[in-house]
Amino acid sequence: MTCASQVKRHREQAEVTVLEHGGHVSYSACGIPGWLGGRIEGGPEALVALDADTAREDRDIDVRTGTTVERIEPDEHRIRVDGTTLAYDELVIATGAAPHDPFDAGDADNVFVFRHLDHGVRAERFLSQTDPETACVVGGGFVGMEIGEALARRGLDVTLLQAEETLVGARFHPELSEVVREHLEAAGVDVRTSTEARSIPRQGEWAEGVRTGDGTFVTADLVVVATGTEPRSGLAAEAGCEISEEGAVLVDRAMRTSVDGILACGDCVAYPHRLTGERVRQPLALHANRGGRIAASTILGEEARFPGILGTAATRIGHLDIALTGLTASEALSAGFEPVTATIEAETKAGYEPGAAPARVHLVAEKGSGRLLGGQIVGGSGAGHRIDTLAAALWKDATAGELEDMDLAYSPLLSPTWDPLAVAARMAAREAEP
Amino acid sequence: MTCASQVKRHREQAEVTVLEHGGHVSYSACGIPGWLGGRIEGGPEALVALDADTAREDRDIDVRTGTTVERIEPDEHRIRVDGTTLAYDELVIATGAAPHDPFDAGDADNVFVFRHLDHGVRAERFLSQTDPETACVVGGGFVGMEIGEALARRGLDVTLLQAEETLVGARFHPELSEVVREHLEAAGVDVRTSTEARSIPRQGEWAEGVRTGDGTFVTADLVVVATGTEPRSGLAAEAGCEISEEGAVLVDRAMRTSVDGILACGDCVAYPHRLTGERVRQPLALHANRGGRIAASTILGEEARFPGILGTAATRIGHLDIALTGLTASEALSAGFEPVTATIEAETKAGYEPGAAPARVHLVAEKGSGRLLGGQIVGGSGAGHRIDTLAAALWKDATAGELEDMDLAYSPLLSPTWDPLAVAARMAAREAEP
Repeated sequence: MTCASQVKRHREQAEVTVLEHGGHVSYSACGIPGWLGGRIEGGPEALVALDADTAREDRDIDVRTGTTVERIEPDEHRIRVDGTTLAYDELVIATGAAPHDPFDAGDADNVFVFRHLDHGVRAERFLSQTDPETACVVGGGFVGMEIGEALARRGLDVTLLQAEETLVGARFHPELSEVVREHLEAAGVDVRTSTEARSIPRQGEWAEGVRTGDGTFVTADLVVVATGTEPRSGLAAEAGCEISEEGAVLVDRAMRTSVDGILACGDCVAYPHRLTGERVRQPLALHANRGGRIAASTILGEEARFPGILGTAATRIGHLDIALTGLTASEALSAGFEPVTATIEAETKAGYEPGAAPARVHLVAEKGSGRLLGGQIVGGSGAGHRIDTLAAALWKDATAGELEDMDLAYSPLLSPTWDPLAVAARMAAREAEP
Repeated sequence: MTCASQVKRHREQAEVTVLEHGGHVSYSACGIPGWLGGRIEGGPEALVALDADTAREDRDIDVRTGTTVERIEPDEHRIRVDGTTLAYDELVIATGAAPHDPFDAGDADNVFVFRHLDHGVRAERFLSQTDPETACVVGGGFVGMEIGEALARRGLDVTLLQAEETLVGARFHPELSEVVREHLEAAGVDVRTSTEARSIPRQGEWAEGVRTGDGTFVTADLVVVATGTEPRSGLAAEAGCEISEEGAVLVDRAMRTSVDGILACGDCVAYPHRLTGERVRQPLALHANRGGRIAASTILGEEARFPGILGTAATRIGHLDIALTGLTASEALSAGFEPVTATIEAETKAGYEPGAAPARVHLVAEKGSGRLLGGQIVGGSGAGHRIDTLAAALWKDATAGELEDMDLAYSPLLSPTWDPLAVAARMAAREAEP
């Protein structure tokens, strides 16, 4: 929708058609956990950024919901849709990603994945109609943690299974992961790390719970599968577009696929990483939005280029901010860097201020040069925003020493005299010394 | 105290003496308004970071409070203190700044300046003992606004006089200043901009109020003078140290003054500005602290250099964050840049999230190159932290286009899909196009 809107905005006479399989177009999937947990008020429409009717009426975009694209015929510059054909000058594939469901359990009445608005609506209906008492969440990444906390907030007994040793993901630092665990446990979530979900046994349409790798059985009235997503690249692949090993559509920086006349953007594509140059997936609204804008520019004949990503991500669970950017030490090693790390504990603001809370910062830098390669932050309100300062530093190839030197704002209400980032940077700079 | 502590930490056998005129050493002057307003709980000791006894006992620093230095005898490497002499190898002048009091009113019983902890203690005593009903605050910079809000919070009728057209200072953008004004007025402060305080008429030891330039008389039970500070550089000047036009002690990047064996740091010195190269004053704990560390390094024979400042500053008044960094358009022009500006309104987080609040961002960039030169932010919780991302971008000479491209964290709880900074950067990049 971003791409469609941008094209119409700059070239009114363009005929723009959007074909959507589901019933909604622009909505915030990221808002679903907060909505389910009751933090975000109103019906599901609270999460809709732009509905199909408005797009049709106000933006003159021919939005067709409930439509299935059968195939693309790239040589003829046309697609087959619900038995008819539709010609195009430029085709944009923005098919997004599908929830990964290794247990093939998503069709059971009490098993839920979270990706589309309808997934949220279905879960809300189940919660309010059947009043479940126990839930098992498979997956301790952002979505699993957010949904787990939301369900605990609604009064369910929640067990969260994470195959990796650390929450957030294998990428996350153990010390920071422990803070997240304590926080989730305080919120009423029974967190079990290093615990793989093996199967979701069913009685007909009803899942009885989750069997783990160590043989335990977690009984649950409701099961959530939050083990990541897979790019929906089938249509693109059939049209001959080059696909990455991970299954993502490969595009150049103008968002063009390898097939003439076909562009792609959104959660179905892979992005160039700023630090490694490799193509990586990160299904996230900002990249999708940026890609959509760039695809529009390309269609309009402008010179826009996707600038790459750092893998920045953030969330807030209850009162805890969790944020990361760039490479972990092991990723840095794999990418050919010699990494050093620094992990510090500080406070989010001056200790005498109400609301001052602990914050932990973990930084990765290159030995010798001191160049910053990545970092992770966990802490009370305000901790998460600091990841953007680090992202800016990474974007401009700053060293740890430079980050320590930067004139960051000091106000007791916003930070200690030395910002936690500066304290971590000082230690990282020392570690990096040859 | 930072310098003294660092020297002792790295060279235990060093004899370090600290001579302090007042009764307290390390305390947070920035916390005084919050303490007076009741946000920060406890006695004034809540603001003390390190007391003299602890410094003596735990750090083996010879702290002498209530001591008056009469003069420095640089050729003899000694000082005259309370009638005796004290020899030194290295002398550090950290005499700080004194409140600017153009009305010579600070000795009246009901007139207050805020700089030292004792100023806060005196005001607290006055407030609780005399229960004043009206207050007039002269000065609409950070301290004036913070104290004004604190007094309003205690139930006083507060009038705030600001000589400039804009709050925060002549440096601040009028649109952003208006947001601050609305916020202060909602907090119960009667804000009068473009209104100069002319005199503070007295009956003996009692100030009756403030007469303004337009002839109005603002009656007040309590008057606050918050019109900035002046460096205390008299001792340094008498010792022959070079002094800036503003009266600040001039130091090189190792914090050495022009006189052999004498260093200076803290609010009495001027700092090199990163963007203009000029020496500027910014009395702020972070710079003072950093300067103290660097002075210690110099004394220890290490190669540390003060990296310069951007003039970053931030505060929170009630629920409003106010922050700025770098140059304004007019300062950029004076420094020889050709500036363009962009001012946008956005929200601090996704609109459907509780607590989402308006934020305004103003950016200054260089025409042609698009290089960022400065910016200002006003908005709800979380807006202020964004100044650090901008400071990092300025520190590394980023362009507005680069700031737009940066992979800043998106989570509905922390920002809209496009961060307000990115939205402002996009507009600034467009404005900067040749």
